[in-house]
Amino acid sequence: MAQKPGLPTGTRDLSPAEVAKRNYIMSVMRHHFECFGYQPIETPSFENASTLMGKYGEEGDRLIFKILNSGNYFYDKNRVELPESLDALLSNSAETITLEQRIELNRFTAKISDKALRYDLTVPFARYVVMNQNALAFPFKRYQMQPVWRADKPQKGRYREFYQCDADVVGSTSLWQEVELVQLYDAVFAELGLNGVTIKINNRKILSGIAEVIGASDKLIDFTVALDKLDKIGEDGVKKEMLEKGISEAALTLVQPLFSFTGSTTEKLTQLEQLLAQSEEGMKGVEELRFITEQVLQLGLQQAQLDLDVTLARGLNYYTGAIFEVAAPAGVKMGSIGGGGRYDDLTGIFGLKNVSGVGISFGLDRIYLVLEELGLFPETITSAPKLLFFNNGPEQAVAAMQAVTALRKAGVRTELYPDAAKLDKQFKFAEKRGIPYVVRGIEGNVYSVKNIASGEVLTIDLEQLKTL
Amino acid sequence: MAQKPGLPTGTRDLSPAEVAKRNYIMSVMRHHFECFGYQPIETPSFENASTLMGKYGEEGDRLIFKILNSGNYFYDKNRVELPESLDALLSNSAETITLEQRIELNRFTAKISDKALRYDLTVPFARYVVMNQNALAFPFKRYQMQPVWRADKPQKGRYREFYQCDADVVGSTSLWQEVELVQLYDAVFAELGLNGVTIKINNRKILSGIAEVIGASDKLIDFTVALDKLDKIGEDGVKKEMLEKGISEAALTLVQPLFSFTGSTTEKLTQLEQLLAQSEEGMKGVEELRFITEQVLQLGLQQAQLDLDVTLARGLNYYTGAIFEVAAPAGVKMGSIGGGGRYDDLTGIFGLKNVSGVGISFGLDRIYLVLEELGLFPETITSAPKLLFFNNGPEQAVAAMQAVTALRKAGVRTELYPDAAKLDKQFKFAEKRGIPYVVRGIEGNVYSVKNIASGEVLTIDLEQLKTL
Repeated sequence: MAQKPGLPTGTRDLSPAEVAKRNYIMSVMRHHFECFGYQPIETPSFENASTLMGKYGEEGDRLIFKILNSGNYFYDKNRVELPESLDALLSNSAETITLEQRIELNRFTAKISDKALRYDLTVPFARYVVMNQNALAFPFKRYQMQPVWRADKPQKGRYREFYQCDADVVGSTSLWQEVELVQLYDAVFAELGLNGVTIKINNRKILSGIAEVIGASDKLIDFTVALDKLDKIGEDGVKKEMLEKGISEAALTLVQPLFSFTGSTTEKLTQLEQLLAQSEEGMKGVEELRFITEQVLQLGLQQAQLDLDVTLARGLNYYTGAIFEVAAPAGVKMGSIGGGGRYDDLTGIFGLKNVSGVGISFGLDRIYLVLEELGLFPETITSAPKLLFFNNGPEQAVAAMQAVTALRKAGVRTELYPDAAKLDKQFKFAEKRGIPYVVRGIEGNVYSVKNIASGEVLTIDLEQLKTL
Repeated sequence: MAQKPGLPTGTRDLSPAEVAKRNYIMSVMRHHFECFGYQPIETPSFENASTLMGKYGEEGDRLIFKILNSGNYFYDKNRVELPESLDALLSNSAETITLEQRIELNRFTAKISDKALRYDLTVPFARYVVMNQNALAFPFKRYQMQPVWRADKPQKGRYREFYQCDADVVGSTSLWQEVELVQLYDAVFAELGLNGVTIKINNRKILSGIAEVIGASDKLIDFTVALDKLDKIGEDGVKKEMLEKGISEAALTLVQPLFSFTGSTTEKLTQLEQLLAQSEEGMKGVEELRFITEQVLQLGLQQAQLDLDVTLARGLNYYTGAIFEVAAPAGVKMGSIGGGGRYDDLTGIFGLKNVSGVGISFGLDRIYLVLEELGLFPETITSAPKLLFFNNGPEQAVAAMQAVTALRKAGVRTELYPDAAKLDKQFKFAEKRGIPYVVRGIEGNVYSVKNIASGEVLTIDLEQLKTL
């Protein structure tokens, strides 16, 4: 019995058209990454489980794909001890599992699985930097475009295997890094023809400063989450939510300016400066944002808008300075198509202290969907051949193959239909493949070529075929 | 305590220089694959275990990396039953494991792991073809360059994660496919500057024919293995081994021509024709080889030698027609740098019968090592910036960043040293990064540039910087 083939949940094949479009996006990124001085590295698809576990929170640990130890994992020298209460474990359902049982299960899992699939590119990058610290020139600017894997619930547009495209620099606290990362976003999206993206910028120090000023450092996230809803539920709604979360009336009076936080970046910074005058950290954040935004605006962006967004709280758990997020052009329904920020101690987990990093990520799949929706993929993106030589029998095939060989040498994507099938079949093949021209006949150095779309027939020589 | 980071056995990081060189090789391949009408697909890194298991023999099954089911794999609805004799299993060492225990263990493994990492690109390709058979135009020519994973014992130059670069066509029995695959090898290696590779060709039908003629169809592999040692152990040695393997004296007399199997391809084919006259299958093999070699030689190769090698028995378990293998130029110690062949029933395992396929594979890692050994990587392959602007303090930095922005827009890889560090430090940074030019000072539109290698100092404007 033949097996009915299928794909694992949350995975997909990429067709030639899809690969060509993805390669186009990545080649644009690669070009600009390298223009900006970022250099490529690649890390293995799987890491030691100990390198990854505990780096992404409890939820992350659960979503990491673990690889079963190879060989007879029950029998090797470091023999696996099964959980003592295995029988009890087995008699329980997933709903009634206790904390102790979960711990026991995790221990068992760790014993039969010492490797895990990459969950993001940042932790492997930190590991790479620490392991190669003596060979690297700091600041080290690297980009990396590789797949990552997460055992997330698959959804439309969310896969268990997807590419991350990251540019990071470690070993410099200079704010010029932030300036050029904004320029890098702008350069990539401008070349992709994606006009009107908004690069939102904030700073962790601003958020900490606000929390400090209102005496609610422990409620930073509640505060930010509520403020972020201003568009949707209005000032009264936000204030109601904040009060419910235990933020005081006095605090709300203090941060009143944030409820009408509009105007130019300069105006926003002036408001923040007044609000945060009593917070050293907050004022540091204002100063950083002022440098970055002033330099960016002075140097000029090609198409993107830079927007100081004080509600932006992405990655609050690890970012310590700048926070970035990129929104698709207005009118396109799509979450953020990029994001990033600065983390002051990227490599500390692996023993290299005081190395600051800042980086950004491009959401390949979402950028793909946005370009598709807006019809922005150039029509020239295709890997399909340009010319199909009809096969009119053994003798003509030899002449055709001579021309095919010459054309390929000249870099023209060409092929010969392999069998002397009925012409109708060969013609339909060209149509289905998206091949624009068919060579129907050859006499000496004269080729009869049909443009499938227009129906036009040309009678030309080999040199003309090359430049068709 | 910080964790000391490491890499799993058999994996490696790729540095910027290595990635740049690998990308160069793959971009040459991609160009020629597409010129030859092959189009890219990508398949997921992991497949359903059932898609892969049983396709690569018992050894292959063992070397496939399995992924642990996610979540509480002991607790979900399809609950795992542990092997009944688990206690007994655990009290045994790997050496004393019985067949029954191994089966039990395999059953247990299958229950806690329903996904596995890709082991090669051929089986996923076959699955892809079957799942997309209605959308594809046949013959379907695809190329695929993706990593595969094998739990092999790591050795120098052999990793547990490595790239395969394959071009295959399915749905045509035309021998023009074999002709163009030889041309494809030649085109790629010629562009890589790797002159003098030998493309060995054989045909499974020739081997079957020989075995048939000498009445030893069951000893085909023994026969071929022995014959392959002719260079090393001489005619007497080979004959001795064949006799030991149970091949008769009479048989050896019949195949005597194979012991002095030299001359042109035409001469070799004539000898084979005489030898195989009584074998219908053998004569079919001769006919196929004649067509392929004649067409290839008539169309001409750029640099490769085509060599009819009757000892070539690669992939004897699945190839049914042509067999290819590529040897590096003489003088380079390296196993084959490519191989392939025709398999008559590629997609049968997934239920699509009578679809013939033929394809070749390029050994990326080995080709890399050969190019490195022969010094064939162009010096221009680098992702390093061309220009580093020294940072001479905040004010100069602004002017520098304006120039940097303009140069990047013009496609010149440029960066600004992020801090106003001592010039000596900035200079050493440029050297370590392999950046050839440093811009030491700016006055208006006049830039003072030093060529690090030559020590030459230029005083030029921005336009001249762009074309440096």
